[in-house]
Amino acid sequence: MTSPRPTLRLLARCKLRTQLSSQTTISPSRTSRRAISSSTPPPGASHQVPIPLSRYLGWAALGLLGTTPLVYKMVIEDAVKLDSPTLAERDEQTKREQGVTEASHMRLRMEKFVKEQQKEIVRALEQLDGTPFQVDEWQRKEGGGGVTCVLQEGKVFEKAGVGVSVVYGTLPKPAILKMRANHKNLVDSDDAIPDSLEFFAAGLSLIAHPRNPMAPTVHLNYRYFETAKPDGSSGAWWFGGGSDLTPSYLFEEDAIQFHKSLKEVCDAHDKNYYTRFKRWCDEYFYNKHRGESRGIGGIFFDDLDETVKDKEDTFAFIQDGLKSFVPTYIPIMNRRKDMPFTDKEKEWQQLRRGKYVEFNLVHDRGTAFGLNTPGARVESILMSMPLTASWKYMHEPEPNSREARLVEVLKNPKEWV
Amino acid sequence: MTSPRPTLRLLARCKLRTQLSSQTTISPSRTSRRAISSSTPPPGASHQVPIPLSRYLGWAALGLLGTTPLVYKMVIEDAVKLDSPTLAERDEQTKREQGVTEASHMRLRMEKFVKEQQKEIVRALEQLDGTPFQVDEWQRKEGGGGVTCVLQEGKVFEKAGVGVSVVYGTLPKPAILKMRANHKNLVDSDDAIPDSLEFFAAGLSLIAHPRNPMAPTVHLNYRYFETAKPDGSSGAWWFGGGSDLTPSYLFEEDAIQFHKSLKEVCDAHDKNYYTRFKRWCDEYFYNKHRGESRGIGGIFFDDLDETVKDKEDTFAFIQDGLKSFVPTYIPIMNRRKDMPFTDKEKEWQQLRRGKYVEFNLVHDRGTAFGLNTPGARVESILMSMPLTASWKYMHEPEPNSREARLVEVLKNPKEWV
Repeated sequence: MTSPRPTLRLLARCKLRTQLSSQTTISPSRTSRRAISSSTPPPGASHQVPIPLSRYLGWAALGLLGTTPLVYKMVIEDAVKLDSPTLAERDEQTKREQGVTEASHMRLRMEKFVKEQQKEIVRALEQLDGTPFQVDEWQRKEGGGGVTCVLQEGKVFEKAGVGVSVVYGTLPKPAILKMRANHKNLVDSDDAIPDSLEFFAAGLSLIAHPRNPMAPTVHLNYRYFETAKPDGSSGAWWFGGGSDLTPSYLFEEDAIQFHKSLKEVCDAHDKNYYTRFKRWCDEYFYNKHRGESRGIGGIFFDDLDETVKDKEDTFAFIQDGLKSFVPTYIPIMNRRKDMPFTDKEKEWQQLRRGKYVEFNLVHDRGTAFGLNTPGARVESILMSMPLTASWKYMHEPEPNSREARLVEVLKNPKEWV
Repeated sequence: MTSPRPTLRLLARCKLRTQLSSQTTISPSRTSRRAISSSTPPPGASHQVPIPLSRYLGWAALGLLGTTPLVYKMVIEDAVKLDSPTLAERDEQTKREQGVTEASHMRLRMEKFVKEQQKEIVRALEQLDGTPFQVDEWQRKEGGGGVTCVLQEGKVFEKAGVGVSVVYGTLPKPAILKMRANHKNLVDSDDAIPDSLEFFAAGLSLIAHPRNPMAPTVHLNYRYFETAKPDGSSGAWWFGGGSDLTPSYLFEEDAIQFHKSLKEVCDAHDKNYYTRFKRWCDEYFYNKHRGESRGIGGIFFDDLDETVKDKEDTFAFIQDGLKSFVPTYIPIMNRRKDMPFTDKEKEWQQLRRGKYVEFNLVHDRGTAFGLNTPGARVESILMSMPLTASWKYMHEPEPNSREARLVEVLKNPKEWV
């Protein structure tokens, strides 16, 4: 079931995403900053992110797929104005009047879930570090919003970012026709293709760069996309996500624990998931100009829709994946964050960070496209960059060193479980 | 005379260049490392660079233009094997038997000139820093070669690289047909288009990142390209080049001196050059996702051929430009290298370095293309990266600070002379 062309599809998605975001630059007046502890939105308020823009996975998180920038332009310029309430307005009303329960639409459940998880994760990372996150809350007048939380120059983390976004928008007919190729249930029949479809996207993205070179950088992203039928019920939908670990020094114990945790989450839902998604991750997070993986992998997946598995089961899988982050990463960090290290080891970490930067700026399609798009919110795109990085001409680890051992594993991805 | 489409042409060039380099990975056995003081080649030896690969300008330096990777593939796969001596062999013989004088072919004169200048520049930077450069000499069995010199973690420079390359190759008919659009004298008449044409490219690239945040990063590149007729005489030819300055703190005195020096060089050859090439530089070295220039500019130009000016005059211009580097940059460095600075100022320099990295990895077409080409010599491409760089989320200089003053000038390029 591994998609034979994830690259092309992801590229198309991130293009759409970027075009969208370029239209939604956030003015300071619409941004509020506060402590996460007081971040509960006022009842009924719609907290809207400008779109997290946070690297490719940030885009993919929003699940806008299969359409080109040209097509998106049409969304902006030719968006159909409905007299009836928008999807965002409907959802706001539902939240206000009925709250969000297990019987609610997936839109509301996913939004509630990622916002809760963001608080959980931020709380866990703050507790580990002893430093509060900076919390930027954004709103989009078109509907949706989000919160970006960044911890910078902490005691444990040089930099960590956790972003949630919820976006409402409208797909025009050409985009619908294009998307239909991958998602047959986008429309009921070929005879009844509407002129436009409202869509919803929500996701959580996370990246954390620790200070201690023995502690690994981690990245995670889970996302949901759906289109709505005119009556507000779900049309096409799919989930994507994954998580990967990037150590500077290899501790097999950590790699095994990380992969084992992901495998357990996968196995609980489908015995084939882990093998597929582990390979997909190795393929995507590959620094091809270096001939090595970004890190020791994890899982990466996209397009989990009704052709793969039932929606409830997939949401349960996404929930389990996201919930497994804290109990997996925090113990790894507790083992590594206070380990002694030398200046040379710190220097090696910085050189590895340089390669992380190379992946993000050269190969990560959403980042590159976002940065090339006028008006994109650069600081959100580059939340993923490390605090510091280094490059040395012709630097090679000494043979048989710990550094060489890491590179060996990056050049030849291992099966960890 | 500013080219209305430098971007497209540069992109085409760097593509060809990268394809070429991917075919010429240097094995360690063909690389020698030595001190620059003993770098004089043995008489008659051909010192051949693998191709400097050093960022976009490295490619452009080699002047391979107007052809696609596909076309280049044909060069590699279908190269016409001549029984007569190659251009490289002819040139080697000439150098051995007659030496290089002002009456020699431009190929030999340009090669001699950039190699001499490399030594001059390396000597001047070594003297300033008190640290020797690492010198890597490469040879290409196809003809040509070069020397890459890097100073790393010096007293004055965090990193400085000076690379020379000389490349001989063969253009197939489709490449000739394509190039002819920009360079009419590539062939004598449309009725006599040869099946292949030998070409020659030589250039010097330089980048220097000082330690002191008051001292500016500098970049420079000068290059020559020509095709040879079957009798070894020159066919089409052109020069390109330029130099730009990237300070972290603005000293108007430095900016004025840098631009004044370039303007003097330009004015001595054409009163229109400076205005055109200054604007071209501002346009090329633009970090568009930041909405700001990389630095305070300088000059940038390409395609200086017989339609612009006589060959001798253009070579004299190139020589003057390259020779002006040491007497312009060294005095600036002498004023800045020992200035006191605070940790906060060093931190600002590191944030500016981050933006330099962004330009090189996101916008510099040669770098991006090179890194995406399997087999490219990554260390040569990334010789231009700073030793260290930094990124902070939502960092903004304080209003009316020196940092804000720099950003203001980067957002609104000034006329310095």
